[in-house]
Amino acid sequence: MTSRPLTIAILGGTGQEGSGLALRLGKAGHRVVLGSRDAARAAAAAGEMNGALGRDAVSGATNMAAAGAADIVMLTVPYAAQHATVEEVREALRGKILIDTTVPLVPPKVARVQLPPEGSAVAVIQALLGAEVRVVSAFQNVSAHRLRDLEQEVDCDVLVCGDDAAAREIVIGLAADIGLSAYHAGPICNSAAAEALTSVLIAINMRYKSPGAGIRITGVPEREGKPEPGA
Amino acid sequence: MTSRPLTIAILGGTGQEGSGLALRLGKAGHRVVLGSRDAARAAAAAGEMNGALGRDAVSGATNMAAAGAADIVMLTVPYAAQHATVEEVREALRGKILIDTTVPLVPPKVARVQLPPEGSAVAVIQALLGAEVRVVSAFQNVSAHRLRDLEQEVDCDVLVCGDDAAAREIVIGLAADIGLSAYHAGPICNSAAAEALTSVLIAINMRYKSPGAGIRITGVPEREGKPEPGA
Repeated sequence: MTSRPLTIAILGGTGQEGSGLALRLGKAGHRVVLGSRDAARAAAAAGEMNGALGRDAVSGATNMAAAGAADIVMLTVPYAAQHATVEEVREALRGKILIDTTVPLVPPKVARVQLPPEGSAVAVIQALLGAEVRVVSAFQNVSAHRLRDLEQEVDCDVLVCGDDAAAREIVIGLAADIGLSAYHAGPICNSAAAEALTSVLIAINMRYKSPGAGIRITGVPEREGKPEPGA
Repeated sequence: MTSRPLTIAILGGTGQEGSGLALRLGKAGHRVVLGSRDAARAAAAAGEMNGALGRDAVSGATNMAAAGAADIVMLTVPYAAQHATVEEVREALRGKILIDTTVPLVPPKVARVQLPPEGSAVAVIQALLGAEVRVVSAFQNVSAHRLRDLEQEVDCDVLVCGDDAAAREIVIGLAADIGLSAYHAGPICNSAAAEALTSVLIAINMRYKSPGAGIRITGVPEREGKPEPGA
């Protein structure tokens, strides 16, 4: 793995996206604490994941206890619960990296881009938390369906946005641990691109009957491991 | 080619993106009329393109004359000129498809997503023009640098947004004519995703020293020509 084993809290870790990320991070050797409003539900989900993984990598707790125990906190709750969950665990976030995967989907029209007036759901959280928490936006475009199928590689790159380059680099390392190529994609406001893109991918899934469209970044010679034509 | 030869006006066709698209569309067999504020400049640019193409596929005119002569109008002017150019040619657009490639870049921070308060620069134009013009958003993520190099294929997919599915389908056909895979990406408001993504690609170009990063859509079995695993 590209980073030392970390303890990673996944708030909303019993949901589709959260459990997919938990499985992959557990498989990669990290310790995962699923956070939920319901600690018993989180513990039950963790037990199932450990069964699938064949070892005890995942545990369950309340969101607050999970955030308190973790080196890095990941937020995977629905948009409607994003703000309240962050407020709930705020004290436990101080000095940590918060990886926010939130997509501002507004049901029922989830295939329609509906970014908040502030421009980005994740940028709003960085503004709320201030400089004592380094918020990094990532994993919005990675299909939960694909993440949960451990037999298959996930054919999707990750756009990593945040105002702190060192924090972005750590998240890029975590993505690499679970087999995903991730890119420095600019400051936290650039999260708008990844958030909006998720509704586009949902629209593509509906139109083309795909269970989980994704994106690849092309044309970056360093990542593609080949010299630029004519360079 | 996937569509009959059309006459396509490219407003701002002497610029980087516009001239790249003009060259590719001319090469594909379409008739291209470059539009410019300066008809003589457009004619000179058209002459150079015909030299490169080895045949007379491209002509030059004022923006208004170009739009009037065309079956389909494409807008490739800088963001600051988008609104005024549309107002200028408005009468000539009636009943036509307007392909708007505009990205709301706000210099000097062009690697920073700065979508307009209305959410999308292209959606604003659809609202302005009303139902008599079918506005389609496309080509925002395709590098001008890559388009202009006719020796190379362009490794980038195209997100096509618009409120009229038949108009989107025509634009997808034009993209195919120049070798690009294009996708129905939802209603015109979804253009926000493609517009925001361009600033992310600029950020990636700067960070990774790429001359023209792009995107590919993954996980769509129909387009990848292979059955879905387990399907």
